[in-house]
Amino acid sequence: MLLPAKLRITKPTLIVDKAICIRNIQKIADKAKKHNLIFRPHFKTHQSIEIGNWFKDFNVTKITVSSAEMALFFANAGWKDILIAFPVNILEIDEINKLASKINLSLLVESIETIHFLEKHLNNSVNVYIKIDTGNHRTGIDAENIEDVKFLCNEIDDAKNLNLTGLLAHSGNTYNVKSKEEVLNIHNDSVSQLNKLKKALNRKDLIISIGDTPSCSLSDNFEGVDEIRPGNFVFYDVMQYQIGSCNTEEIAVSVACPVVAKHNERNEIVIYGGAVHFSKDFTIDTNGNKTFGLVVMYEKNSWSKPLENCFVKSISQEHGIVKVSSEYFDKIQIGYIIGILPVHSCLTMDLFKSQSVEII
Amino acid sequence: MLLPAKLRITKPTLIVDKAICIRNIQKIADKAKKHNLIFRPHFKTHQSIEIGNWFKDFNVTKITVSSAEMALFFANAGWKDILIAFPVNILEIDEINKLASKINLSLLVESIETIHFLEKHLNNSVNVYIKIDTGNHRTGIDAENIEDVKFLCNEIDDAKNLNLTGLLAHSGNTYNVKSKEEVLNIHNDSVSQLNKLKKALNRKDLIISIGDTPSCSLSDNFEGVDEIRPGNFVFYDVMQYQIGSCNTEEIAVSVACPVVAKHNERNEIVIYGGAVHFSKDFTIDTNGNKTFGLVVMYEKNSWSKPLENCFVKSISQEHGIVKVSSEYFDKIQIGYIIGILPVHSCLTMDLFKSQSVEII
Repeated sequence: MLLPAKLRITKPTLIVDKAICIRNIQKIADKAKKHNLIFRPHFKTHQSIEIGNWFKDFNVTKITVSSAEMALFFANAGWKDILIAFPVNILEIDEINKLASKINLSLLVESIETIHFLEKHLNNSVNVYIKIDTGNHRTGIDAENIEDVKFLCNEIDDAKNLNLTGLLAHSGNTYNVKSKEEVLNIHNDSVSQLNKLKKALNRKDLIISIGDTPSCSLSDNFEGVDEIRPGNFVFYDVMQYQIGSCNTEEIAVSVACPVVAKHNERNEIVIYGGAVHFSKDFTIDTNGNKTFGLVVMYEKNSWSKPLENCFVKSISQEHGIVKVSSEYFDKIQIGYIIGILPVHSCLTMDLFKSQSVEII
Repeated sequence: MLLPAKLRITKPTLIVDKAICIRNIQKIADKAKKHNLIFRPHFKTHQSIEIGNWFKDFNVTKITVSSAEMALFFANAGWKDILIAFPVNILEIDEINKLASKINLSLLVESIETIHFLEKHLNNSVNVYIKIDTGNHRTGIDAENIEDVKFLCNEIDDAKNLNLTGLLAHSGNTYNVKSKEEVLNIHNDSVSQLNKLKKALNRKDLIISIGDTPSCSLSDNFEGVDEIRPGNFVFYDVMQYQIGSCNTEEIAVSVACPVVAKHNERNEIVIYGGAVHFSKDFTIDTNGNKTFGLVVMYEKNSWSKPLENCFVKSISQEHGIVKVSSEYFDKIQIGYIIGILPVHSCLTMDLFKSQSVEII
């Protein structure tokens, strides 16, 4: 029996292949062990208690999240060591105090205003990482700005309830490239900047924490690095495949979508599955096509490789328009379920979090 | 007291200005009345029982939704006449039968396979619209393909439980243009194609139903049209403003976002507010900037006009990076709340539907 029939799927449903996830976790856990790194995976990718539990078999006890809300969610599920890797939102001081009273909480700071606010309002001690910008330019203090980082270090040292822990960077710019070489160049440069900064600060006690999935998947250079925080690798996705971080067999999520219309004059299939299921991230494939997902067929217990020359060419709120090769067009009928490998699994999972998810 | 303090906002919160919504509903309701049109608003934009109720004061009794799930949601809230304006997903026949047994249900078809399936599996009668493609090329039968439409009409006429009701089109291509003239050209062409088709079919009993917000906002040509189904107009958004469908005072939703970091070397502010709050739709502004939202300041009971030369330049999962003019940079501090007018209000509302929404 085909998988969708077994699961009785009637509307867009996110399917998580546990075996693939476990292999993906194993790969990064092994790498962390080999390089003697703390493995603190980012749980914003799955936001799931059940999937979070799979990491426990790999001795993961420290995790990363991106909001106080998510920290509370996982703290309530029993996680005791959580880093909120997002510049502290001081308006959520009540949630932060609640967390700090019950778990080993780590926060991310990059401004003197935030440090002073925390010093004044924290009721319990927290660990503090300083956010360093090594070239991504989203946020953080420029790695070359030694004076500002030193100033923050001193202020944190002097502040009650703040324990200075480390320097934290996220090379999010690796998500915008299309080759392994570019990823490694960005990563190596980032690692080198962090080591240089740490040396200039003369603070051997500070750990270095880095995090992006492309670097953690592709590099073996972790010189001076103490902790890694990748998240996306547990599922991977089409974007990571195009970057070169994974192969398609490592993509652990697909969205099962009903076929609702066919247009043979243009070899297009319309699916129930759109922006409310996939968000609106896209990539440009090697043929220059804007792509919102790749197409797979469900097999007995999982799904096929992506079908050649088939891709989601556009999406609106609930519609997905799928370009299909002639080879497959006749095989796919109205009422069938096809699978879509998402471009960005974190956003797709976020959209499904209160909806239909099936773990196989 | 400023609005965010009054509402005690601590994390991204969607704020709906009821007075603006009511004016927007009034405008389209008046236009429908003037042109003697059935006003069947699309409720996918708000997906809210409370906001749906506001339409009742304008004698709205017929509504449009985009999924069986949404139809059940509004049917359970007491709505008795619902059109699912999405090609029938035959896998949800159980939900369709449930709906058809309790309300006046209308469905959208475009294939013989779907008609035969419905004929075989429906337990109660439903109204049926045929989906016509007047140039958007998302889905539907080409308006010039008279033979195919005629064939479907005959099949529906012969089918038990299917009552042929009308021809339905959606000029979604008006969302991709940047001027009133282009919207009107697309709309006029669509209306003309539908009238021509109806005449060729020689079916005076069929109604013509059209729906996009740009056309319904800007046009006064409803020749031969019987029904309109716009949805977005209740909120509007930055995309509609750029198309010319509305002015910024008609945008009825903003997202209140905490400021978490500032970068004065590049006049950028980092907010807690990202792709999980806004989706990833963007527009290109008149200066060629990719824009994920415009910036407003909260005032006593509402918000300001968009601040000049300020916009959301990029978003990731929870971060928004806001480009701010020098004039405002110093006025906005860490811990403040700023407002973002979303690019696409339907997707933003969908993301907030189970989260923080405040109606003012």
